[in-house]
Amino acid sequence: MEIGLVGLGKMGFNLGLNFLDHGHTVAATDVNEEPVKEISSHGAVPASSLEELVGRLEAPRVVWMMVPAGDITTGVIEELTTLLEDGDILIDGGNSNYEETLKRAETLAEKGISFVDVGTSGGVEGARHGACMMVGGSEEAVKKLEPVFRDVTIENGFLHAGAAGSGHFLKMIHNGIEYGMMQSIAEGFDILEKSPFDYDYEKVAQVWNHGSVIRSWLMELTQEAFRKDPALSNIRGIMHSSGEGKWTVETALNLQTPAPVIALSLMMRYRSLEEDTFTGKVVAALRNEFGGHEVVKK
Amino acid sequence: MEIGLVGLGKMGFNLGLNFLDHGHTVAATDVNEEPVKEISSHGAVPASSLEELVGRLEAPRVVWMMVPAGDITTGVIEELTTLLEDGDILIDGGNSNYEETLKRAETLAEKGISFVDVGTSGGVEGARHGACMMVGGSEEAVKKLEPVFRDVTIENGFLHAGAAGSGHFLKMIHNGIEYGMMQSIAEGFDILEKSPFDYDYEKVAQVWNHGSVIRSWLMELTQEAFRKDPALSNIRGIMHSSGEGKWTVETALNLQTPAPVIALSLMMRYRSLEEDTFTGKVVAALRNEFGGHEVVKK
Amino acid sequence: MEIGLVGLGKMGFNLGLNFLDHGHTVAATDVNEEPVKEISSHGAVPASSLEELVGRLEAPRVVWMMVPAGDITTGVIEELTTLLEDGDILIDGGNSNYEETLKRAETLAEKGISFVDVGTSGGVEGARHGACMMVGGSEEAVKKLEPVFRDVTIENGFLHAGAAGSGHFLKMIHNGIEYGMMQSIAEGFDILEKSPFDYDYEKVAQVWNHGSVIRSWLMELTQEAFRKDPALSNIRGIMHSSGEGKWTVETALNLQTPAPVIALSLMMRYRSLEEDTFTGKVVAALRNEFGGHEVVKK
Amino acid sequence: MEIGLVGLGKMGFNLGLNFLDHGHTVAATDVNEEPVKEISSHGAVPASSLEELVGRLEAPRVVWMMVPAGDITTGVIEELTTLLEDGDILIDGGNSNYEETLKRAETLAEKGISFVDVGTSGGVEGARHGACMMVGGSEEAVKKLEPVFRDVTIENGFLHAGAAGSGHFLKMIHNGIEYGMMQSIAEGFDILEKSPFDYDYEKVAQVWNHGSVIRSWLMELTQEAFRKDPALSNIRGIMHSSGEGKWTVETALNLQTPAPVIALSLMMRYRSLEEDTFTGKVVAALRNEFGGHEVVKK
Repeated sequence: MEIGLVGLGKMGFNLGLNFLDHGHTVAATDVNEEPVKEISSHGAVPASSLEELVGRLEAPRVVWMMVPAGDITTGVIEELTTLLEDGDILIDGGNSNYEETLKRAETLAEKGISFVDVGTSGGVEGARHGACMMVGGSEEAVKKLEPVFRDVTIENGFLHAGAAGSGHFLKMIHNGIEYGMMQSIAEGFDILEKSPFDYDYEKVAQVWNHGSVIRSWLMELTQEAFRKDPALSNIRGIMHSSGEGKWTVETALNLQTPAPVIALSLMMRYRSLEEDTFTGKVVAALRNEFGGHEVVKK
Repeated sequence: MEIGLVGLGKMGFNLGLNFLDHGHTVAATDVNEEPVKEISSHGAVPASSLEELVGRLEAPRVVWMMVPAGDITTGVIEELTTLLEDGDILIDGGNSNYEETLKRAETLAEKGISFVDVGTSGGVEGARHGACMMVGGSEEAVKKLEPVFRDVTIENGFLHAGAAGSGHFLKMIHNGIEYGMMQSIAEGFDILEKSPFDYDYEKVAQVWNHGSVIRSWLMELTQEAFRKDPALSNIRGIMHSSGEGKWTVETALNLQTPAPVIALSLMMRYRSLEEDTFTGKVVAALRNEFGGHEVVKK
Repeated sequence: MEIGLVGLGKMGFNLGLNFLDHGHTVAATDVNEEPVKEISSHGAVPASSLEELVGRLEAPRVVWMMVPAGDITTGVIEELTTLLEDGDILIDGGNSNYEETLKRAETLAEKGISFVDVGTSGGVEGARHGACMMVGGSEEAVKKLEPVFRDVTIENGFLHAGAAGSGHFLKMIHNGIEYGMMQSIAEGFDILEKSPFDYDYEKVAQVWNHGSVIRSWLMELTQEAFRKDPALSNIRGIMHSSGEGKWTVETALNLQTPAPVIALSLMMRYRSLEEDTFTGKVVAALRNEFGGHEVVKK
Repeated sequence: MEIGLVGLGKMGFNLGLNFLDHGHTVAATDVNEEPVKEISSHGAVPASSLEELVGRLEAPRVVWMMVPAGDITTGVIEELTTLLEDGDILIDGGNSNYEETLKRAETLAEKGISFVDVGTSGGVEGARHGACMMVGGSEEAVKKLEPVFRDVTIENGFLHAGAAGSGHFLKMIHNGIEYGMMQSIAEGFDILEKSPFDYDYEKVAQVWNHGSVIRSWLMELTQEAFRKDPALSNIRGIMHSSGEGKWTVETALNLQTPAPVIALSLMMRYRSLEEDTFTGKVVAALRNEFGGHEVVKK
């Protein structure tokens, strides 16, 4: 199939190579020149702009975006809306908020453009050699794209989840679960660290990966992390987050669904960004007021 | 009434003065000489040991302990068990764990000694001029002591809560609720602190204390704390705890009762004791493993 | 002062009487005829529409809305925007989301209309005889209205909190704290209910209201609730919510502020709306899968 | 090796078969006659009592207990303490609390008996064909037993974790992590269930098991559970628990370690055991008191 690829970051570039490996024709563009040049050396057709990219594709076109969610995705879609035509398919493979996806799908439908949302998991390695893709969109569009999805995902790693938006929604929830699983694992090791025993964490993760109930890819990564740095002594416990966990909690609230574990996983990340807290100051000050308990001075 | 007072720390000393104010006869002892000497200058009979104290009281005796919970209370009770007699009453006015109280009441009952547990709230000021007392013990013993309880509590600040242990249990739950209320107030101010607005926190606490749903003594203390230090800039957000919050959560678990807010209030205190966390390191390391997200190096 | 009052529900009607008590001139309207008629019998000028209401006021006008937040408030403001003029003041005394307030203030400012947001606490009783009001808006507008605010609030129950939006923001946080305090109190009584002791809850609340650290208006209401129904045996534990708690959590997330206690208070409310949970089904099914633990069949 | 096996429940019986498969000599007993008879038909030596069992083993003996934790384990150990001799090894393969294990190891050491604690994971299937075993105990004892452990575990599924108690501690933490992971997964599906989309949960679990970050054995079990009952419509969301989760939280509290996600996972299980809550009644009553909000009557 002929695919126009927009965005050659880590994920997009590797996905492009994956397309090429499977015999697809790829035209590619990016805001930076280098990756365009580099992927052209692997056989892709380089394009210096969205306009050029669209011009190089035969209608009905398939354009796959792999760009950062938010304003950049919005900008690319706005420009493509003016370039694409009735019958074309536009794919958003990024981590967009599903509510945005729902709106975009509606707007594009008015122009006859099918919008397909792809939640992608598996990291850079997955993009290169077989990802996990959760796809939302119309029966017709997804059917047409299915051979491509099957080519670039691992076996059973492709799902047409439902209507437009359902792919990004599923990826969002996937990440929410991921937050909770990671926090669970981390709390467990934190208790081990404070225990009276002297555990070898790499070996602990290893044994938990062989025959136990909690064996998982995340535990394998835990094993790997401890292999590299047995006490994680070189890194600080600052936990950043990139949006989907927050969206999951917001969605849970909107659906009146209690999701305490996912919510707390997120909040403990926020807590880790602060060295000192105003919450703590207020509680310390109150303890001093009513009980004369000493505060720790700055 | 004649009362033997054991323990002249901040709470015990002020409670002793409160007894004397109301015309009770007080014999007092402490491991330190000074407060014994000082309270004798207010009219109490000094005693240099538990043995001397008990010797100075006429049977049936009333001995009121105001000593730190745990090992010290255990030690004092063990010694008093050999000194007191059938018909005497022993009062534990400290923050003992109710499970300890249940066991002690049983042991003392075998010797004919009534054990009465008093959960005391209101701080030093309350001990001096009118506390809140939640009392557990037999109908007979508490009836006899009621005039003293009424004297040293504020109006309606005395409750015979039930059998032995029920007073300390109630005080424990009181403190659990206190943890949750304090954390609630503190989280609110933390959000204000990060808001786009520029609030005067003392005035915020003041307005919330006048006509709002959340008006409370804790909010009055909040107002006072901000009056003294408008941005709490001189203190660190380290939140210590003294046991009852933990017991409340443990009791909740034993009773299979969900108490998420009290539990989280406690856990955020523990979190505040750490500068960096192993939990955070594990999550950061995992994010690096699967997504290549940068960790913050030490 | 001459005040145009829009909305004569429980809150608006009582606030209107409060205005009249303090000698203010009130013109009032509502979508229902009856309360308009009724308040006119207390001396207010009745108006059958917003247009009539505005027409009866002398410029520069003061219009005070006391209508449900959300679409109704939006609709009323839109209509008033076409009726009011440069120099008029529009007050939103409802529980609007502060982000809406920020947008509305900007839009109205373009027409020269000052927008003042009032977070009102204290319930119907407060509206009638002295509320707590947290006010956001320009120095000029709030200064002009201050005598009215002072009249209808209790002493120290008025605060000009800052710029437009700051009043509704403060009310939102007030309610978030309220959620946490209520859940704390409720968890405490839940543990008492499952304890081995046999407490009289009205008396427990009473003693906690006299001299203890957790004495508060909410504890007084707890005492009152148990006085009416000692075991709360006539009501179900279904906890509805009306928006501000959710906004508080959403705001906390937007500001990357951990607010675990407020978040959990909200989530336990959502949990109480469900008789059975899909979460529970999944966990039960998993326990059956890996451990052969029996599930409870429907 | 010659092994005395005490306890032929699901786990013990299958472990016994596993021993026999690997050429070990097994003498077995149980409080019920049938499984003793049945395992003897597979080649084990039957014993009708602990005394008989110990009598049939040559010193130095190896006795492996696979009985329910708590009183039953205590009783068996007490009896075995009088039967075993200096140089014997006693293994506790059950889910005992590590604090009990520490005490038992000390008591048995006084008699010269080595106590080895084995945390076993992997369920009945694991016991039969290859479990995951986390082992605590002295270097000497574990070294001697290592060949047996290697035989009955899957590859890399055996770890000598450290001194006595460290095996049960590790199993406890494993289960705590398991609680958090299960709740995370379940919350995710709960949000899917309430979403506007119409997901096929079996397929969702399947795609998440292929290439995604959250692929895990628990997700495979989730897939299997949905395969059997696509909407889990036949089971109720009642989540029982068997102790280790609670111990993990208690241990976290004792070590002053925040473990919000594991704690909440446990508390949501407790919540699922209640149809109505006293917490909810109190909050509903309070909302009625201050805001006149309707309560739901019974």
